[in-house]
Amino acid sequence: MSVTPTPGDKFTFGLWTVGWPANDPFGDPTRPALDPVESVHRLAELGAYGVTFHDDDLIPFGSGDADRAKHIERFKAALDETGLKVPMATTNLFKHPVFKDGALTANDREVRRYALRKVMRNLDLAAELGADTYVFWGGREGSESDAAKDVRAALDRYREGLDFLADYVVERGYNLRFALEPKPNEPRGDILLPTIGHALGFISTLEHADMVGLNPEVGHEQMAGLNFAHGIAQALWQGKLFHIDLNGQRGIKYDQDLVFGHGDLLNAFFLVDLLETGGYEGPRHFDYKPARTEDITGVWQSAAANMRTYLLLKERAAAFRADAEVQEALQVAGVAELSTPTLGAGETPGDLLADRSAFEDYDPEIAGARGKGFVRLNQLAVEHLMGAR
Amino acid sequence: MSVTPTPGDKFTFGLWTVGWPANDPFGDPTRPALDPVESVHRLAELGAYGVTFHDDDLIPFGSGDADRAKHIERFKAALDETGLKVPMATTNLFKHPVFKDGALTANDREVRRYALRKVMRNLDLAAELGADTYVFWGGREGSESDAAKDVRAALDRYREGLDFLADYVVERGYNLRFALEPKPNEPRGDILLPTIGHALGFISTLEHADMVGLNPEVGHEQMAGLNFAHGIAQALWQGKLFHIDLNGQRGIKYDQDLVFGHGDLLNAFFLVDLLETGGYEGPRHFDYKPARTEDITGVWQSAAANMRTYLLLKERAAAFRADAEVQEALQVAGVAELSTPTLGAGETPGDLLADRSAFEDYDPEIAGARGKGFVRLNQLAVEHLMGAR
Amino acid sequence: MSVTPTPGDKFTFGLWTVGWPANDPFGDPTRPALDPVESVHRLAELGAYGVTFHDDDLIPFGSGDADRAKHIERFKAALDETGLKVPMATTNLFKHPVFKDGALTANDREVRRYALRKVMRNLDLAAELGADTYVFWGGREGSESDAAKDVRAALDRYREGLDFLADYVVERGYNLRFALEPKPNEPRGDILLPTIGHALGFISTLEHADMVGLNPEVGHEQMAGLNFAHGIAQALWQGKLFHIDLNGQRGIKYDQDLVFGHGDLLNAFFLVDLLETGGYEGPRHFDYKPARTEDITGVWQSAAANMRTYLLLKERAAAFRADAEVQEALQVAGVAELSTPTLGAGETPGDLLADRSAFEDYDPEIAGARGKGFVRLNQLAVEHLMGAR
Amino acid sequence: MSVTPTPGDKFTFGLWTVGWPANDPFGDPTRPALDPVESVHRLAELGAYGVTFHDDDLIPFGSGDADRAKHIERFKAALDETGLKVPMATTNLFKHPVFKDGALTANDREVRRYALRKVMRNLDLAAELGADTYVFWGGREGSESDAAKDVRAALDRYREGLDFLADYVVERGYNLRFALEPKPNEPRGDILLPTIGHALGFISTLEHADMVGLNPEVGHEQMAGLNFAHGIAQALWQGKLFHIDLNGQRGIKYDQDLVFGHGDLLNAFFLVDLLETGGYEGPRHFDYKPARTEDITGVWQSAAANMRTYLLLKERAAAFRADAEVQEALQVAGVAELSTPTLGAGETPGDLLADRSAFEDYDPEIAGARGKGFVRLNQLAVEHLMGAR
Repeated sequence: MSVTPTPGDKFTFGLWTVGWPANDPFGDPTRPALDPVESVHRLAELGAYGVTFHDDDLIPFGSGDADRAKHIERFKAALDETGLKVPMATTNLFKHPVFKDGALTANDREVRRYALRKVMRNLDLAAELGADTYVFWGGREGSESDAAKDVRAALDRYREGLDFLADYVVERGYNLRFALEPKPNEPRGDILLPTIGHALGFISTLEHADMVGLNPEVGHEQMAGLNFAHGIAQALWQGKLFHIDLNGQRGIKYDQDLVFGHGDLLNAFFLVDLLETGGYEGPRHFDYKPARTEDITGVWQSAAANMRTYLLLKERAAAFRADAEVQEALQVAGVAELSTPTLGAGETPGDLLADRSAFEDYDPEIAGARGKGFVRLNQLAVEHLMGAR
Repeated sequence: MSVTPTPGDKFTFGLWTVGWPANDPFGDPTRPALDPVESVHRLAELGAYGVTFHDDDLIPFGSGDADRAKHIERFKAALDETGLKVPMATTNLFKHPVFKDGALTANDREVRRYALRKVMRNLDLAAELGADTYVFWGGREGSESDAAKDVRAALDRYREGLDFLADYVVERGYNLRFALEPKPNEPRGDILLPTIGHALGFISTLEHADMVGLNPEVGHEQMAGLNFAHGIAQALWQGKLFHIDLNGQRGIKYDQDLVFGHGDLLNAFFLVDLLETGGYEGPRHFDYKPARTEDITGVWQSAAANMRTYLLLKERAAAFRADAEVQEALQVAGVAELSTPTLGAGETPGDLLADRSAFEDYDPEIAGARGKGFVRLNQLAVEHLMGAR
Repeated sequence: MSVTPTPGDKFTFGLWTVGWPANDPFGDPTRPALDPVESVHRLAELGAYGVTFHDDDLIPFGSGDADRAKHIERFKAALDETGLKVPMATTNLFKHPVFKDGALTANDREVRRYALRKVMRNLDLAAELGADTYVFWGGREGSESDAAKDVRAALDRYREGLDFLADYVVERGYNLRFALEPKPNEPRGDILLPTIGHALGFISTLEHADMVGLNPEVGHEQMAGLNFAHGIAQALWQGKLFHIDLNGQRGIKYDQDLVFGHGDLLNAFFLVDLLETGGYEGPRHFDYKPARTEDITGVWQSAAANMRTYLLLKERAAAFRADAEVQEALQVAGVAELSTPTLGAGETPGDLLADRSAFEDYDPEIAGARGKGFVRLNQLAVEHLMGAR
Repeated sequence: MSVTPTPGDKFTFGLWTVGWPANDPFGDPTRPALDPVESVHRLAELGAYGVTFHDDDLIPFGSGDADRAKHIERFKAALDETGLKVPMATTNLFKHPVFKDGALTANDREVRRYALRKVMRNLDLAAELGADTYVFWGGREGSESDAAKDVRAALDRYREGLDFLADYVVERGYNLRFALEPKPNEPRGDILLPTIGHALGFISTLEHADMVGLNPEVGHEQMAGLNFAHGIAQALWQGKLFHIDLNGQRGIKYDQDLVFGHGDLLNAFFLVDLLETGGYEGPRHFDYKPARTEDITGVWQSAAANMRTYLLLKERAAAFRADAEVQEALQVAGVAELSTPTLGAGETPGDLLADRSAFEDYDPEIAGARGKGFVRLNQLAVEHLMGAR
């Protein structure tokens, strides 16, 4: 197995990742702006499959139509030259002050209408560039005071907005699916749809639920202390893993956007194991930030590090699964037995009640005393992760 | 408004709350066992509406049929004497070693079958006692190692089990709805369906989704750093707030089960405001633990404190809503405007695109500069909470 | 007791608080720059006692000497007109890219020397303006990778820098004490001296330990899940509470800098109780940020809210202490008994060993069964906080 | 380098670790009690160097003198047979209800006196068994309500108790040093001396400060979201790392006590790197709990896993340091430059002010733009951890 990335690995990067000028809440930018065209070329050289963008990454907010066209044309030319794809696009609904109280759920109705138009405009461009996924990160949809936001009304508006935009996509015949990106907080005190779960619940209420799924981000779930691999498993199980944002986070704190694997490495191992075997076929998209301490050389080193770590984890996860001792330990742990239905084919409540072996004659002490060998199994995973087997 | 509880306030308590013997992971019990009959009488005297129970709270695990009948009979007599109701019941699927790897999602199929039987048995009793809600807290459904649990298979089994049990309830004609109680961790490293959101997502996949809702607990969501009032708002919005567990938690740490209001008091204020005006009509159920430092006197003081704090918060929330200055501040903040649909009646994508006032002629700088007055509004809430207006 | 602030209440504000233009990691500023002179006048009108500043708040980074003098002169004139004091000043060692890897602990020695000079320059100004406290917030002293920072060497340099600067203050005869401001993370992944405790430990190693204390901030300790009132108690106990930063934080997440009391209100109540009775006589300094949703009207409303909440809490804490039932509950809880030494005067190990009542004849079961009444006491506090007694 | 443990590696285990019967707040024990003698033999076979104990691990609480002597005798015999050492001992001041409000800081003076006697008795035994470190984990020293505990009085009593016990050790001529073990919460809502830092600050106030240091535990610091390797570095820097508790924790939640390396593996790598090169020569002590899912086979597998992971990390850390590319990356990052004092030998404030190159002629833009290569360096560490270089 090679750890040199190729387009076949489907690695993609947001323009805003390598292009981040490295400002933070307490600091000014440490790097100059990066031309998206330059990013396309460098990412292609590094073995990436594609790039993704917010409207404002490509076309500065407030550009006139002529400028806009020029920006798009240059970008397309770079794509053509490099063969990079644009599998995903999204809208910047958080940076300009107009969105300070939200976009699709702003209290101010005119802001909501403006936001819809901003999305529609970029949906057109996303479709034109061949994207099949359109991400909604509602970073400003939330509140700091529970008095200031009627959450139920906000969810009404969120649904209204997404239903309307889905109608638009259908009407235009675009080959686009929506992917919601949850986050618990930052920049708002509490963001609506804070986790994978809340978004899954919400999606079930949408008119076009079938065309709306998720774009979960490693760090966002970990900011709520949640097991990312578990969340991805539920998303896959509900058929809703439309896209994924890979990065690193060191626990419950501000959003760090570290290189993939530079946070919870053990969970990253199990995540890659799951992605590679669980039926996910979309891009492996990195939504990270090259640290503020880095210059442009460090930017490209960090981009490469994301891909290399992913491939190393993929290699180790495969070795883990192929190890006979692991197979035996999985057997002891009864992991596969969980795929056997609890009930027999056609077994009814009456049947189960009649099965004395299930209750009256069952000795819970025996099962309670039986060792599961889970720690040994975990240790085998740790050792494979460390390349020690 | 009175702050003395009466049955009309619908306050209920789990037998396991006041009855907790005050053991913890590092300490032995500090209180003797409490007879459920005693709890019923004392809670009635304090003004409670009802009590709730796990099967094993009432009937010690492993009791024979005769003993079981005796325990139930005594309990019923106490209910009759006091007029207390049993609006909810649940199953202990976590204490005995047999459930150490889960119940409905244990790797071991026999454990799963045993768990179903244990639930069925207590469903019968719940129905007999007149409960209309049956809670599932899957505290052991989870893992410490991602290698040891196939989460997608576990969700299959979770669904299978709930579908089966719902079938049973329907078949028997019981007037029972199920309420899932999410928790992110403890006692398992990561618990399945860790938040309100994950449970809502999961429920949407169930065969009897209409009869399955939620029993969210204050502290459980706060253990993931989530805004509890926001979670309750989403649950209400999805028609899934079937029951609620009130208590206190001081941030992201072990499950504290403090008295209601002894944790995040400001969020408790907004929660009561929401419960009292948002259409929730079920019990106000306290799932707390009287601190390990308390004797039996402290147990009853703490039970009373839960109810008194709720009523005080209700009083203050009502005063907040009735205050003319608050009304004016809500107006400035545009809170009600969020209930106005973003689109006009029948407005199509084409219509919105044609509305130049929505985009081409819209000046985002003006909206971006407009003050929302959210901080003043929040301060008004804080002052009402403090009884300072 | 009045809840209208007066200079006697010693409320102070950083120029950077009301002057924050409301940019965040995902958003552009929503407010124009605020002239420090304007801030001085408005804060005086609101009843503040003083203002505090970073060098760069008053004099834009890189200003020439003439410009610098002009800025200072205008500021002094405003102070003279209003009577506001400048009890504290500090250095901005975090915003400019030169400090991206730290200031006093940057790997680059020249950066460290530059940082010392920047501090010295502002120490002169602080002394000139009559400040008696000089704060060091080492927001950039830290790392994201443990490979990139030798923490022990960093602590050597931190100590070297503070010892040197203390020498400078002594040499110049300035009436200034240093106050370190801990923070666990943000903007660095891990910041050195992350909590009150770490700073106390570090201070004990300094050459001029007597002139170095703390400037703890509510939200910073709460970002580590710590009880702020406990931390302040330890700082007071060690004689190191030189200054304090009051604000609000809703749990473990990014640094929110909310209005004081808009976070953990119950802990704020106990904090004010402690500050007002524990011997702290310094300024009550607000280090908060007016929310990004606010315009300039909201800025001044939020400034006023900080002071009003403090005064309300002071009033309620005094009522709590004066309540006879609280006194009785404190008695039951044995709170004052903790001030009685454990040992008798002059009691030696041999004496204690000889006291059979202490061990051989002591019955731990009795003490173990005795109720402490802590929950009732806490409920009394909650009710006083709510103005309900 | 071998990854098979030998006594030379100085691995030690608490009797209470492998002997934990696997009860938790929601579950009964899943394993029978383990005879300490059996533990000694099995740990010796696995390659351990020693064992440690709480008084009550060895001698059940309340045993009479004769029983006590028998327990000790059997234990000593096992030590003699196996050659295992007892480098550390400690007191159980948390399990019995008598300590429900603390031991050295209980409000009740008699409890405090009883606690001192309990400690003294076990100090005698610790000295007799040859221990040189005596640990104090004050798990019950804390509170759930700020009204119920006067923290400053509590710190007075904590100091009084430790000073007294240190006197006793000196008086008896025991070769024992004290090591405080911080923890932020659980089982108390907030524990006194919650982090390494708070304990360091506190120690600086003790009469026998020189004989009191720390016993930090991986999971305890991580429960406050702190970087454990940073904390250890500060403890080493202050000469206070007297002992260490190794285990695993997956973020801010209840105390998990997982196998070492089964939590934050990357931090564990940097920790071992630091321990092996930073001058720490004490035992590598594992304070973990074999998961509740394990039987006795799993107990010993988990004990072995701790040691093997440590040795693997040691091997990888050594390879990291020996790698020429790492050396070059450290150079680029300027890591060693931080060991160069900021000031020249004898350089005074006046000298620095006179050095125009330090400020007037210094161009901060150049340093601000220079890349530090920290991300590349971190990636090299990740790859070494994964055995990929």
